[in-house]
Amino acid sequence: MTTVRAAVLRGARRLNIERIPLSALPAGGAWLDVEACGICGSDVHAVESGPRSGPAVLGHEIVGRVAEIDASSPYFADIAVGDRVVLEEALPCRACSYCRSGAHRLCPRSGRYGSTPVENAPSLWGGLADRVFMSPLATAHRVPAGLASELATLFVPISNGISWLTSAHLRPGEVVLVCGVGQHGLGTIAAARRAGAGLVIASGVRGDDDRLAVAAQLGADVLVRSDRESLADVISEHTAGRGADVIVDVTPDADQVVSTAIKVAAPRGRIVLAGLKRGALTAIDCDRIARLELALLGVAARDSWAIDEALRLLEQDGQLFAPMVSGTFGLEAVADAIAAVRSGDGAAAMVHPVVVPSLDR
Amino acid sequence: MTTVRAAVLRGARRLNIERIPLSALPAGGAWLDVEACGICGSDVHAVESGPRSGPAVLGHEIVGRVAEIDASSPYFADIAVGDRVVLEEALPCRACSYCRSGAHRLCPRSGRYGSTPVENAPSLWGGLADRVFMSPLATAHRVPAGLASELATLFVPISNGISWLTSAHLRPGEVVLVCGVGQHGLGTIAAARRAGAGLVIASGVRGDDDRLAVAAQLGADVLVRSDRESLADVISEHTAGRGADVIVDVTPDADQVVSTAIKVAAPRGRIVLAGLKRGALTAIDCDRIARLELALLGVAARDSWAIDEALRLLEQDGQLFAPMVSGTFGLEAVADAIAAVRSGDGAAAMVHPVVVPSLDR
Amino acid sequence: MTTVRAAVLRGARRLNIERIPLSALPAGGAWLDVEACGICGSDVHAVESGPRSGPAVLGHEIVGRVAEIDASSPYFADIAVGDRVVLEEALPCRACSYCRSGAHRLCPRSGRYGSTPVENAPSLWGGLADRVFMSPLATAHRVPAGLASELATLFVPISNGISWLTSAHLRPGEVVLVCGVGQHGLGTIAAARRAGAGLVIASGVRGDDDRLAVAAQLGADVLVRSDRESLADVISEHTAGRGADVIVDVTPDADQVVSTAIKVAAPRGRIVLAGLKRGALTAIDCDRIARLELALLGVAARDSWAIDEALRLLEQDGQLFAPMVSGTFGLEAVADAIAAVRSGDGAAAMVHPVVVPSLDR
Amino acid sequence: MTTVRAAVLRGARRLNIERIPLSALPAGGAWLDVEACGICGSDVHAVESGPRSGPAVLGHEIVGRVAEIDASSPYFADIAVGDRVVLEEALPCRACSYCRSGAHRLCPRSGRYGSTPVENAPSLWGGLADRVFMSPLATAHRVPAGLASELATLFVPISNGISWLTSAHLRPGEVVLVCGVGQHGLGTIAAARRAGAGLVIASGVRGDDDRLAVAAQLGADVLVRSDRESLADVISEHTAGRGADVIVDVTPDADQVVSTAIKVAAPRGRIVLAGLKRGALTAIDCDRIARLELALLGVAARDSWAIDEALRLLEQDGQLFAPMVSGTFGLEAVADAIAAVRSGDGAAAMVHPVVVPSLDR
Repeated sequence: MTTVRAAVLRGARRLNIERIPLSALPAGGAWLDVEACGICGSDVHAVESGPRSGPAVLGHEIVGRVAEIDASSPYFADIAVGDRVVLEEALPCRACSYCRSGAHRLCPRSGRYGSTPVENAPSLWGGLADRVFMSPLATAHRVPAGLASELATLFVPISNGISWLTSAHLRPGEVVLVCGVGQHGLGTIAAARRAGAGLVIASGVRGDDDRLAVAAQLGADVLVRSDRESLADVISEHTAGRGADVIVDVTPDADQVVSTAIKVAAPRGRIVLAGLKRGALTAIDCDRIARLELALLGVAARDSWAIDEALRLLEQDGQLFAPMVSGTFGLEAVADAIAAVRSGDGAAAMVHPVVVPSLDR
Repeated sequence: MTTVRAAVLRGARRLNIERIPLSALPAGGAWLDVEACGICGSDVHAVESGPRSGPAVLGHEIVGRVAEIDASSPYFADIAVGDRVVLEEALPCRACSYCRSGAHRLCPRSGRYGSTPVENAPSLWGGLADRVFMSPLATAHRVPAGLASELATLFVPISNGISWLTSAHLRPGEVVLVCGVGQHGLGTIAAARRAGAGLVIASGVRGDDDRLAVAAQLGADVLVRSDRESLADVISEHTAGRGADVIVDVTPDADQVVSTAIKVAAPRGRIVLAGLKRGALTAIDCDRIARLELALLGVAARDSWAIDEALRLLEQDGQLFAPMVSGTFGLEAVADAIAAVRSGDGAAAMVHPVVVPSLDR
Repeated sequence: MTTVRAAVLRGARRLNIERIPLSALPAGGAWLDVEACGICGSDVHAVESGPRSGPAVLGHEIVGRVAEIDASSPYFADIAVGDRVVLEEALPCRACSYCRSGAHRLCPRSGRYGSTPVENAPSLWGGLADRVFMSPLATAHRVPAGLASELATLFVPISNGISWLTSAHLRPGEVVLVCGVGQHGLGTIAAARRAGAGLVIASGVRGDDDRLAVAAQLGADVLVRSDRESLADVISEHTAGRGADVIVDVTPDADQVVSTAIKVAAPRGRIVLAGLKRGALTAIDCDRIARLELALLGVAARDSWAIDEALRLLEQDGQLFAPMVSGTFGLEAVADAIAAVRSGDGAAAMVHPVVVPSLDR
Repeated sequence: MTTVRAAVLRGARRLNIERIPLSALPAGGAWLDVEACGICGSDVHAVESGPRSGPAVLGHEIVGRVAEIDASSPYFADIAVGDRVVLEEALPCRACSYCRSGAHRLCPRSGRYGSTPVENAPSLWGGLADRVFMSPLATAHRVPAGLASELATLFVPISNGISWLTSAHLRPGEVVLVCGVGQHGLGTIAAARRAGAGLVIASGVRGDDDRLAVAAQLGADVLVRSDRESLADVISEHTAGRGADVIVDVTPDADQVVSTAIKVAAPRGRIVLAGLKRGALTAIDCDRIARLELALLGVAARDSWAIDEALRLLEQDGQLFAPMVSGTFGLEAVADAIAAVRSGDGAAAMVHPVVVPSLDR
């Protein structure tokens, strides 16, 4: 193999399948053959707005198999040729206080899979390709033997849900409201049901009926179409006026969801802000935050342990999670995979398309 | 004694000194002779906007001496005639889940000292009076013998600072920024210094120079006049660009302080929202909250244990805290006491006037 | 009604059914008609060793219906005649720092239902009676309408399990080992399954086969007869040598269980010590505690919120929990009820007998 | 330079100064010139019992200056030739769940500075040498410019104190008892004073009078010679019978200290077990642990952030901490340095001798 295929984002709406020369393996790292790579909403956004810091291979929900590894590398004690792993998105510095404390996802110097430019050797820093470079700075998790790679790409949304609810100190019996039923919302619903929530309420909008049905399968007790009913009324009815204890907002570009969350939170409620809004919030009722001692908690990604737990759940309950993988595409069809999410809140939008490069290799 | 004097708020800017008949002691309670009552910013606001739910005796930073107690009350195991106590503001139900878990300050049914109407027997529900009723629902803390009552009224702002920083999980060595140098700001600065903060930065505005000087005495390392210098620049300079770990905002009516706090917070920073803004926040950078995993934490009052710790600190370091008590007034001069705070951010505004009814009794 | 029946413990093995005169209702309290009262291992111990501080009505897992209430009581905002409630065992002072912080179960001055002497008016301080006094110091929780009183007596062991695992910071996916399959062990197993444990291992001894079968129904994944197999081997096998993350020891008089727990705990493991041993532990491997950063956490009772959650679970999954109520007795048969537990680890020992006074009233 | 001096432990009481050939710098690492290396009680123990897994260079409280670094190493983003750093003892795998979560000190595969055998290339795995190898698996912290290297070796005991009290959730105003006034005890006392403890009690034995005097300088309020007075009486007197909230036991080989700690702890007290006992504990009052909800917390080392905070405190308060560095030795005198600690609890035993290889290079 001297070149590999990769989906390189060169500008706004310029995502090309290119052949990239395969260099010698850099010291301390490994080559992974990509088995599957999930598509998420941020990929859509990237394609529309162009690369942030130079042309780059897209894709950051990566499942790969080790094809070659620097055996002298001190960093991959567990991993050998033939192993399947998932990669965390972050490429942290491993030297700063965040990295030392298990918060490498917050490392200010961190690079990212899916946006590190191809001009940085060895170019292959994204999962939408035949191969991806596992840097010595990467964090890899082994995939359980019984778990299909397509399903394993769900490690991102499911670990997010697990981690976010843990960060929000979810207590057994509490009422959880999840705003948004895309992949992250569904992952959070599944996590809430398994972590002992007393009532799980899923809120979607027009076009989300199929997703709400998946939400119900994953454990939502109450489904709300917030374009048709008042979320505040539903919450009040199900909690005798008390409000929701934990609210997870995964909606993008939806300013008023946070305002509503503050309105329907119970005293001491925790509101997890997980959706990038790309614009300032307005109309935040600060006095209600103070009087009810609410907490607004930003989350960027997830604690590493939650990834192992997500992989365990996926292996254990594969059938249950399978409906979240809504379509499989070859690498040449990556534009279709991204478009499938892009259709936004229309009825046909896929929750979580997966690219499997071997399909058209 | 058949009547007692009390400052009754009857409408906007209608605060009268009245004589209220002293009834027989209700079952389970006690009469306290008020020794001192602190004035806080919310008293100014109450006088300007009128009583929320009917005419009421003002005053909720109460230090009193037990004059009479229902000896059969099951609720005051520690307290006898002659004891000095401070009262928590809340009059909670003692039956709900908040009350059972130590969060009685969040009890949805709670009454409040300083705003419970005089029409509720026995009328004396405020500290700006010769006497106040210690209800069986009240929470009282004994005042150490060596602590003057005027100084003891500072239990509110100092316990707030202690409790809020604990809620924000302040870690030794962290950088604390306190926005606002009124009584709550100063209490927080003193608490931060004593809890091991690495650097304490106090931020005030025009007219706050005297208060900033007190802030320095209480432990602030860096003083900022945010009307003259860029808070962002100061924070950046002192933290090598990293930002503040814990930010406590005690400013009222100051929307942009929260926006600035989000801007100058370090990754994983915690922003304590303690000032009532009486209006919606705008221009909140939600994506920065998410990307840096910031936490915005509303606080309504304080954990009870922090009051005992505040009283201990006040007894131990009385000299240090004395400058916070900026003036003493008789009960007939209550309007002057409130006006002294009211002058707002002018140079002459007092931090914490105290009313001592015995001065003109 | 002028007298009521009560099971009064007058000395070691002197438990008499007596008629106690019913006094006028003391101020601030209520009379409950006892609907059901659970029997627990500590009742057996009390009968064998005699009352600690004078003859007392036994019984502290109390479900009652309000027969009469002091309507002027400020302490029972939610409760009216005809309501069913469960009572917490503690009768705390409500004035100390523990009571103020939600830890009233640790109040050093607290009395207890089931051991407060009959010489303290109004004598009826135990649930093994037709009536029990709900003191103004008591903490009562309403019973959901759809939940049978016999089943509601399980609020104690199930809330214990919920609360203890929360205290141990159980994280989704962790391995939980429960040593002991009496009522507290079974309650913990049910709680662990619902709180997202990855693997729940139940450990019993000879005579526990029926209980282990109930454990499996409630959610245990692995059953161990520790008299026949090595617990260490089983844990090692199921965790790839890593150990258990959370271990809850509810066994009485079993010194070596704690030693074993330390041996089979994973790094950062938490060991909950819930069983009273009535003797000093020996052979504690302190260096392993230090090197693996284990935590040994004593638990006396439960947080109040966990009781409401236990009642909710019991209402929701009544069928599932029903096998834990292993027998129902009239008040006159209280000795039989206690003997049913007493048979210890014999095959016929009941998990949780319940006394229902109306059966023979 | 072709060889360097190193103190190699070859067997029980066989600590030789040897010359070790200096190899080419292994990929990804760095050579440090040792500036200073602290001696701790575990070094004494190692010399007496011999190396655990083969001859090794001793020394794990290492301050060094970078002499040569692999510029292509991805792991030392902050560090260049000429920088001074301290090294954490652990050499973790960086791949397991402990490493990923900031708990690399608990990595089950971790090597250690001071005990990794010389047969592992490049042999120089200890601080009692002219040079030490900074492995790509090492965790290094920069030393502030104004801090002398001898003083910087105190980063171990002071960071331990900071980290342990944080793990024990020390709250402002709580009573802290530190059992043992060696370097770890003194570090904990200093940390407790700076973290807002209300009362700090230091407990030593015969021969500890000088150390107790240092304890007082560092912030202890009460000094106890437990061989002459009853610790229980002292605690009771100073806490009105309530007990100590946080107890840190750093004593070695002292079984009964833990028993005493359990006896003098307040309800909800936390007992930090930091001293290796090299033998089983006996006479542990398990029922008191349960009834008072005590927590026994093992600690192996420290969180990484606490090292940066320790270095900051040392720079800020150098004068204060200087008495803890009780003697400076050249490398050839390493046996004397170790003997200085070894004299155990005799009056002349040094708290923290430091070896400075340049003194006799």
